[in-house]
Amino acid sequence: MQDQYNRIKDERLQDKVVTAQEAASWIQDGMTLGLSGFTRAGDVKAVPLELVKRAEKESFKVNVFTGASLGSDIDKLFAEAGIVHKRLPFQAEPTMRKKINAGEHLFVDHHLSHTAELLRANVIEPVDYAILEAVSISEDGMVIPTTSIGNSLTFATHAKNIIIEINMAQSPLLEGLHDLYDPGKQGERNPIPLTKVDDRIGNIGIPLDITKVKGIVFTNQADSPSTIVKPDEETEIMAQHLMSFLRNEIKEGRLTEKLAPLQSGIGSVANAVLHGMIHSEFKNLQVYSEVLQDAVFDLIDAGKVDFASCCSITLSEEKMNHVFPNLEKYRDKLVLRPQEISNHPEIIRRLGLISINTALEFDIYGNVNSTHVTGTKMMNGIGGSGDFARNARLAIFVTKSTAKDGNISSIVPFVSHVDHTEHDVDVVVTEQGYADLRGLAPRERVPLIIENCAHPTYRNQLWDYYNEALTRGGQTPHLLEKAFLWHTNFMKNGTMLEKEKVNV
Amino acid sequence: MQDQYNRIKDERLQDKVVTAQEAASWIQDGMTLGLSGFTRAGDVKAVPLELVKRAEKESFKVNVFTGASLGSDIDKLFAEAGIVHKRLPFQAEPTMRKKINAGEHLFVDHHLSHTAELLRANVIEPVDYAILEAVSISEDGMVIPTTSIGNSLTFATHAKNIIIEINMAQSPLLEGLHDLYDPGKQGERNPIPLTKVDDRIGNIGIPLDITKVKGIVFTNQADSPSTIVKPDEETEIMAQHLMSFLRNEIKEGRLTEKLAPLQSGIGSVANAVLHGMIHSEFKNLQVYSEVLQDAVFDLIDAGKVDFASCCSITLSEEKMNHVFPNLEKYRDKLVLRPQEISNHPEIIRRLGLISINTALEFDIYGNVNSTHVTGTKMMNGIGGSGDFARNARLAIFVTKSTAKDGNISSIVPFVSHVDHTEHDVDVVVTEQGYADLRGLAPRERVPLIIENCAHPTYRNQLWDYYNEALTRGGQTPHLLEKAFLWHTNFMKNGTMLEKEKVNV
Repeated sequence: MQDQYNRIKDERLQDKVVTAQEAASWIQDGMTLGLSGFTRAGDVKAVPLELVKRAEKESFKVNVFTGASLGSDIDKLFAEAGIVHKRLPFQAEPTMRKKINAGEHLFVDHHLSHTAELLRANVIEPVDYAILEAVSISEDGMVIPTTSIGNSLTFATHAKNIIIEINMAQSPLLEGLHDLYDPGKQGERNPIPLTKVDDRIGNIGIPLDITKVKGIVFTNQADSPSTIVKPDEETEIMAQHLMSFLRNEIKEGRLTEKLAPLQSGIGSVANAVLHGMIHSEFKNLQVYSEVLQDAVFDLIDAGKVDFASCCSITLSEEKMNHVFPNLEKYRDKLVLRPQEISNHPEIIRRLGLISINTALEFDIYGNVNSTHVTGTKMMNGIGGSGDFARNARLAIFVTKSTAKDGNISSIVPFVSHVDHTEHDVDVVVTEQGYADLRGLAPRERVPLIIENCAHPTYRNQLWDYYNEALTRGGQTPHLLEKAFLWHTNFMKNGTMLEKEKVNV
Repeated sequence: MQDQYNRIKDERLQDKVVTAQEAASWIQDGMTLGLSGFTRAGDVKAVPLELVKRAEKESFKVNVFTGASLGSDIDKLFAEAGIVHKRLPFQAEPTMRKKINAGEHLFVDHHLSHTAELLRANVIEPVDYAILEAVSISEDGMVIPTTSIGNSLTFATHAKNIIIEINMAQSPLLEGLHDLYDPGKQGERNPIPLTKVDDRIGNIGIPLDITKVKGIVFTNQADSPSTIVKPDEETEIMAQHLMSFLRNEIKEGRLTEKLAPLQSGIGSVANAVLHGMIHSEFKNLQVYSEVLQDAVFDLIDAGKVDFASCCSITLSEEKMNHVFPNLEKYRDKLVLRPQEISNHPEIIRRLGLISINTALEFDIYGNVNSTHVTGTKMMNGIGGSGDFARNARLAIFVTKSTAKDGNISSIVPFVSHVDHTEHDVDVVVTEQGYADLRGLAPRERVPLIIENCAHPTYRNQLWDYYNEALTRGGQTPHLLEKAFLWHTNFMKNGTMLEKEKVNV
């Protein structure tokens, strides 16, 4: 117990300790919750579970705002309990996804850097309760976050009430790794004074208005480990293609061996791409990203990455056991920032990031779908990919050229949902190769995309579409009546392959 | 003659005067030209015409990079002469449009703030000749631009050679109105120190490496006047709807009567919207935009606008005759900036602009098409609309609800080209009303868009599509096999109206 109270260094708050059950009892039907947590890291673990328990006996709904996806099965349990009215800005959980696609939960899929602006400007529902995981509370009343920051600073600043979960399972060594900066209101703010990846511009914790702190709950539970699949042969080949592109950039004098600060979206492919750099000639790399996955720590350990800035640390169980007890070793190589700063267009453009994100599909002109399966069903959400792609030095999208045993081509005539327009996509990569689309007119992009990126099985079919479209002319030739035929064929026949082409 | 030479105050350059014919003779087949000019203002007028003359006797092609669209019929004459290989980043000329859509000219349609980054990073073709219109050359060798800046600073800095056209018809009073700032290389740059619309952060001219100046040509020709149509009844109604929305923002405490810095795209609708503010209660307005059209000067004259920052001044002939002789009067209310700064995401986000741009069509979920007629044929280009929409406080898109005598609905099930995704569009406005899409899930947006924005003739047809799509579920319900039926029906039957609905 004493150990627990040692984590509340601000004496004014020591009488605020309550049970998770009591804290959960304050939450009323129709309220909006701002939960800490970003890609399974640093989520609150106790109060949400008590809310789920309450739902066994009561009927209520809440809006659930977070940093990004949650761990600890919270999105799953919330979805099963049916207590979510509106969810934003990101999720990645099958049960919740199903409810979203059934229209039972509203899901607002916006750029991860935007939530803070929308709350600050009072555009979306104000947060009734910010519920934030902490390592501790400092003597001067600052919440020291754990393995992510997400939107916690904004939630704490703008919420009517605050509940803090002090997680004894999170290492006290995390203290000092965070850098909390609030840019202030639009129209009244100064430039964000960050010009280098390792700049520190703010506080090590979230300053609290202690009159808003309603309760403090103790927990003792590790983050959910990441579910990242290890690199396979195809993702390793994709990593090689991407590195070939980067090598060519060096050859052309546009980059040096230090490259430029790297951002890599969450997922197996992005992880594999970074992993592929371990045995490369690139060195003194820097990372300026949302999420640090296993590969970044491998790169630090291998002496390849000098510094990594992030908003969240999401690791496999094995890597957690390696990193968290050894945080001292990483202390001068690591900083965690709010997602508004990790994803801020001002910083992304200034630093000139190399941004690597995963596509669900892209089309022959370079438009990218990151979110919707066959144009209708939400997968996870756009996340930060748009924040980065629009403003990065290099907006790179990666995907395997086919899915579902080759029955889906990830390269299609017309993407069924557009998250990143042709204006924003620089390079696309599959296991077949890469296409550098920069400075090219739409008609120049097509041959590169088909020949370098599409799977050979689908190339003729893509050429057939394009050649017929060309007869009609236009800046971006299309056959609108056939634009989605590949998708509708898949829904009808289980394959995008046209019959006659299957037979050939 | 003496009068002309007085405009070359840097004596080192006075022996560089040549004829336009001679200057044009230096340009070789395959070269890339960087021309001043942005939306008909400040374009070079003599050397391009001599190039067109050369094309009567010779066969050659050049890449033509500009700020935005050109006046003085240059794009038209270039297109007719067939001397364009690649054109970027914007055009708005029917003959050139035709050639682009026929695949005879390559057109790279990118965000107007990106050209400078692409040139600086050596990603697109390096500029062989920057050809820049100037009022004068200062004693210390700076080019004083005329009625636009566009990409001229970047062209001058990175071009191998520079030709200057000193236009005696441009008022010397323009000197001092420009503010030239180069942010420098990505990864090495500082924050752009602009925090208020009227901040001055750079030089009044473009610093010249005088060893690159190959020739100076004198011209004497006014800019082409703008072709903006006067507000009509429908655009006036749209302006009223937009102002209703803004009034509601004030009521909700999100804005004050000063609003926030306004950006307004070029075009009749945007002009009408600004015009509508003259007799409003809004006051002490500020403008931070690309192009200042007539309406902004009307607003300044009416005491409504305190300060306007722009990249170009594009006026009707009548307004030119009023403004240019009276520049003294506007001197403390006006600044011209490079398009990289007028459109910079860092500044747009920091200042929190209210951004108003024109859509060709938008769909029931809020995706916007700004560029492609029926998904294939280029109209003008995305221009700065993406720079602004992504990062503005309010991304507002306006369009009349129908076109072609009601045979085209500007609100469709699925836009035929996406320039601004559902993640980036805040408010859509037609003469029917407005839909505020902020913080709404896709299914919440549909009723607002159909009922508030679509023309009554098309509402049932839109509901039919949506209701059938709803039976299939999804975050964003669609019927992919019918998604473009409205467009294909229009191409086939000359109307988007379905037969049975026409008969009802």
